[in-house]
Order: sequence, then C-alpha cells, then structure tokens
Amino acid sequence: MRVALDAMGGDNAPSVTVAGAVDFLNARPGDEVLLVGDEDAIKAELKGKSYTDSRLIVIHASETIEMEESPLGAIRRKKDSSMARAFSLVKEGKADAVVSAGNSGAAMALGFLRFGKLPGVDRPAIATVIPVFTKPFVLLDAGANVDCTPRNLLQFAHMGRAYCSSALGRDNPSVALLSIGEEASKGDELTKESYKLLKSANVNFVGNVEGKDMFFGRADVVVCDGFAGNVVLKTSEGIAEGAMKMLRDEIKKTWIRKIGYLLLKPAFDTFRSRTDYAEYGGAPLLGVNGTCIIGHGRSTSVAISNALKVATDLASNKVLNTIAADIAGTVGLWEGSVAAD
Amino acid sequence: MRVALDAMGGDNAPSVTVAGAVDFLNARPGDEVLLVGDEDAIKAELKGKSYTDSRLIVIHASETIEMEESPLGAIRRKKDSSMARAFSLVKEGKADAVVSAGNSGAAMALGFLRFGKLPGVDRPAIATVIPVFTKPFVLLDAGANVDCTPRNLLQFAHMGRAYCSSALGRDNPSVALLSIGEEASKGDELTKESYKLLKSANVNFVGNVEGKDMFFGRADVVVCDGFAGNVVLKTSEGIAEGAMKMLRDEIKKTWIRKIGYLLLKPAFDTFRSRTDYAEYGGAPLLGVNGTCIIGHGRSTSVAISNALKVATDLASNKVLNTIAADIAGTVGLWEGSVAAD
Repeated sequence: MRVALDAMGGDNAPSVTVAGAVDFLNARPGDEVLLVGDEDAIKAELKGKSYTDSRLIVIHASETIEMEESPLGAIRRKKDSSMARAFSLVKEGKADAVVSAGNSGAAMALGFLRFGKLPGVDRPAIATVIPVFTKPFVLLDAGANVDCTPRNLLQFAHMGRAYCSSALGRDNPSVALLSIGEEASKGDELTKESYKLLKSANVNFVGNVEGKDMFFGRADVVVCDGFAGNVVLKTSEGIAEGAMKMLRDEIKKTWIRKIGYLLLKPAFDTFRSRTDYAEYGGAPLLGVNGTCIIGHGRSTSVAISNALKVATDLASNKVLNTIAADIAGTVGLWEGSVAAD
Repeated sequence: MRVALDAMGGDNAPSVTVAGAVDFLNARPGDEVLLVGDEDAIKAELKGKSYTDSRLIVIHASETIEMEESPLGAIRRKKDSSMARAFSLVKEGKADAVVSAGNSGAAMALGFLRFGKLPGVDRPAIATVIPVFTKPFVLLDAGANVDCTPRNLLQFAHMGRAYCSSALGRDNPSVALLSIGEEASKGDELTKESYKLLKSANVNFVGNVEGKDMFFGRADVVVCDGFAGNVVLKTSEGIAEGAMKMLRDEIKKTWIRKIGYLLLKPAFDTFRSRTDYAEYGGAPLLGVNGTCIIGHGRSTSVAISNALKVATDLASNKVLNTIAADIAGTVGLWEGSVAAD
C-alpha cells in the first residue's frame, strides 16, 4: 500500500510527521509513503534517519494550510498546499490513502471535495476509537454532522461496523445507540425513531446505551449525531485533563507525596498509555469515496505512525467496498421506513 | 424554614435520611424538618441520636415508592407514599420545601403534579452543580426535557442564574450555551437559534462553550437541552469512575505501588472530596411553583444534610419569586423572536 502523508499538517510538523513516516516504513516493509510538503524542510528532517530510500518519496508542495485558517477559504486560496496535494494523489490513483494531522475542517472538506460520497451515503461521518476502559470501541459521528436523521444514524452504524472490523479486528461488531436510558422509549425524537430503524436493520443492534455505560464494554460501535458525539469527546477530554491536573497539583504540595508519586509512577504511566489516543492514530472520514485519516493537531510521531498503519489497513481491507456494499443492500429497507433527507 | 424530607427515599433510607436530618438540624438551629415515612423505622433510626425534639417531627406514611417502579404508575397506586406525602406538605403550606433522594422520575412528576408550573414557564428543568475543576458551575437541563426550543433554553438561563446566585453565592452569574465550537455559527439548529435569543436577552450571556472548556471556569451557568445535559453528566461519571478503577487496579499490582499509594492517599482524598457531588446535595427541579430538591439515589447522610441546606436556602432566598419575575419580564422579548412551543 502507498499512503500520501501531509508532511506539514499538525502542531509539530514536519518534525513528527517525518519521524512517524520513517517509523512506519521500518515497521511495515511492504508499504510506501509519499511525503508531501516543503521539500527542503522535509529533507532536513530526514537527515540522519535510517530508512529505505525507494519506499519514501518526497513530493514538493509550496504552501501550507495553517491550523487556524478558515477551511474553505484556505482550500480556495492555497492551490498548492501540502494537504490538498496529498488528497489529490489519492484521487489521481497515485496513493491508496491519505493522512493529515493539519486543519481538520480543511481535511474534512477536502475529503468531500476530492473524493465525493460513496453511492448511497447521505452524510459522511468522523469515526473515533475511544480507548477506555473495558475494551476500545468506535464512536461516530464525532462531529461532522450536527443535525442528523435516523437514516443517517443507520448509515453510521454500517460505516462504524466496517471500520471497527478493520481497526479493532472484531467479527460482526455490535452496535448501540447513544441515549439517556436503556429502554426503547427513552431519548429524544431522533433516538426514538433511530431505535426502531436500527432494530429492524441488519447491524447486530444491541439497543440504547447511556453516556456512562458505553465506556464499559456495552458495544463495539456507538452511533449518535455529531453534536452529541462532540459533547462526549470534549467532556471526556475535560474530565480526564482536569482530574490529572488537580491530582498533579495535590501531589506537588509535600515531599512525602512526591515520593509516593515516584513509587506510583509506573501505575500512572500504564494508565496514561492505556488511555492514549495516539495508539489509534487518528479518525477516518467514513462514507467518502477514498480512504482518509484525520489526525489530532497535537499528534506525536507515534500517532502519525499509527495513523499510517490504520490508513493502510483500511485500504487493504477494502473497507470502502464493504461500506458501499452494506449501504447498497439496505436501500430497500430505508425506502419503506424513513424518508430521505 | 421547614423542610419535608422523604425519609424512605434513596438506596440507604431511612438510615442516611434520618442521620442527614439530625446533622442538618444541629447545624441550622433556626430550621425544622418533617420526616415523612414509616414511623417505626424512622423512630428506630432516631434512637440514640442527639437532637432537639421540637424541630424534628415524624409524619407517618404507610407506603414507599421503590427506585425501579414506573413513576406515574407508582404515584397512581400508592396514594400514601412517603414521597407523595412530603410533596403534599409543601402544597398545603405546611412546609417550605421538599427533599427526596428516591425514584427521581416520580419526584419530578410529583413536582409537576403537586406544584404546577410557575407563570410563564414552559418547561421546568433539573439544575445540577458540577463541582469541578476551576470553580463549580450550574448545568441545566440535566435531563427533564429531551427535545427543547430556544425559548426553553432562554428560560433555563433565567432559572439557572437565580439558582446559581442562591446556591453558589454569585452576583450576576454569567451564562454560556453548550455547543461544539465557540463561534455563533457553530452548533446544531437549536444552539444556533438559541445563541441569537440569548445574545439579545438580559442574562449576562458570554457565548458558546465547548464540552471541555466548561469545566475550566468559562461561565457560572451552562444551558443545554436535557439530552446533551444527560450525556455530559453520564460521560463525566463514566470517565471519572473508569479512571479511578483503572488506577486502583494498577496500584494493587505491586507492594511498592501500594506503599506509594499510602503516601499519596491525602492527595487522592482531597481530590475525591473536591469532586464529590454530595457537597451539593441534590438537584432542584426549577420552574415549578414549589421548592423541591431531588437527591441522588446513592445519597449519603452528608448529601442529605447538604440537600436540606440547599432547599432551605432556595426557599429563604425566594428563588421561585426571582425566577417568576425574570421570566415575566421577558415575555415581550420572546413574542417577537421565537414562537411558543
């Protein structure tokens, strides 16, 4: 497989992107990386690193989309950005997948614009692996669509299952619907209607799950609209960061506590590594006709390397085809039950 | 002030309710408690406790609404339940406020049924104090209304401000709208319309807040629909519980870690106490024409005692009157901007 990597995307690019690409190539001897961005900057980062020349190709792009730029404006103005060039390489058949940890709004827009939607898909969605606590699960939509229909959520279920099988290696993944109670009667208008649709669909639906229980192994895939998905992710991030900061402040207060911390450090480290988003490297935009992974702006080289792995796995497992086939197979079901939006 | 307490409500009633009532009476020499429930069980719990007889009155009720009963069914069947009797005491003017840590659906329904809505209020809401991290803030609606209109959210802003002033002692509390980005253009249909309405209202509106930033002192009050509010609360609970469990499991693995934990225990204890919901004792149902506090089913005696304090404070600060006056003053504003639901 060959992945196009936006070498300039992310808070610490191109240093972490180049390092991540090299690590990836050393771990995956059958794959190739196209490093897209400022040639001089990339080559400076490559100096002294050990890798096989033939599997790492640098492709120059003269511009960079910055993190805080307006996505559509930046895409329009910067025709030769590293991000746009990387997406175009997939569109042109020169790469199998693209990874960018840059401006995520721009990456999402480029996914729509360059690849278009898969046949039958109404709305692409961002899927995220949540690494805690009992076993990792896939949450979608994580923020691409704020107002959704039950039909959108059913499509998310199909997309999420295909991604979950590829990324987490699960057979016939189970799907739950995020709601505010387990009973079918609990929830808002969207979830109550979606419950009925999911129940009659072929997606191994296990019912509603509450915001708390989803972290404890209730389902392999949890579907919700992008507003709720964003609230889940940001709330989790806030609680985890705040708790760690508060504990750190408390620990600093006495010498005895500092010694206690040193003894406990391995426990804290295991905890951190098991809850580290970098293990999963990024979030795919599912439902578009091309494989793309959007990384966190704060991606480390480990996150980039893992994002490249996820991207090649998605491409080689032909997850796009699975999604397209599943969704084509359900068109009849939708027609009878829910109007198209 | 005189509070009616549902002595049989909650997982550990009547032991924790009676203990909480006694603690409250000893801390607040000017207040009284009506303990409503099984007289024999209450008197058995009172044995050996030190309190002033005249300020603690036991009122017998022959039935108890269980935690897992269907709220409306239980209210219909059990005419002489401790919970219904406690609410009726306020309705009849024999108490100033009511506290129950029992079946929360039933408590909410009794709030509606016995008290009715305040003039001008479309939908009562549950308000919760979130105790972390920078400073506590009030979140509402925490789950009473799943599908809301912008007009509902504006009313929640008024209710939340009045409650925040009373419970947290803040002057002119600021209000933020939970959304998925800070800009006015970010959010779903509900939040985008609500943003406009809140901006033109007299509620010290400070704009949108994301799920993460609200935990770090962005506003005194955060408004959202009850679906999002429930997702925030349950996600927070899941992350906090999961993280503590994971850390505990890691700590148990070696003797050195166990020693480290002993040295760090005071830090963990401070952390726990600062994030303890029991400090705030329960959540008021705002917008009904009576003061009621719904406690967590797992309430401890500390939580019950604090809930009694919050209830008397709300009643003596005449928070109901503030809400009614604020909402009456905004009727003109709504008429021109958003249709009633």
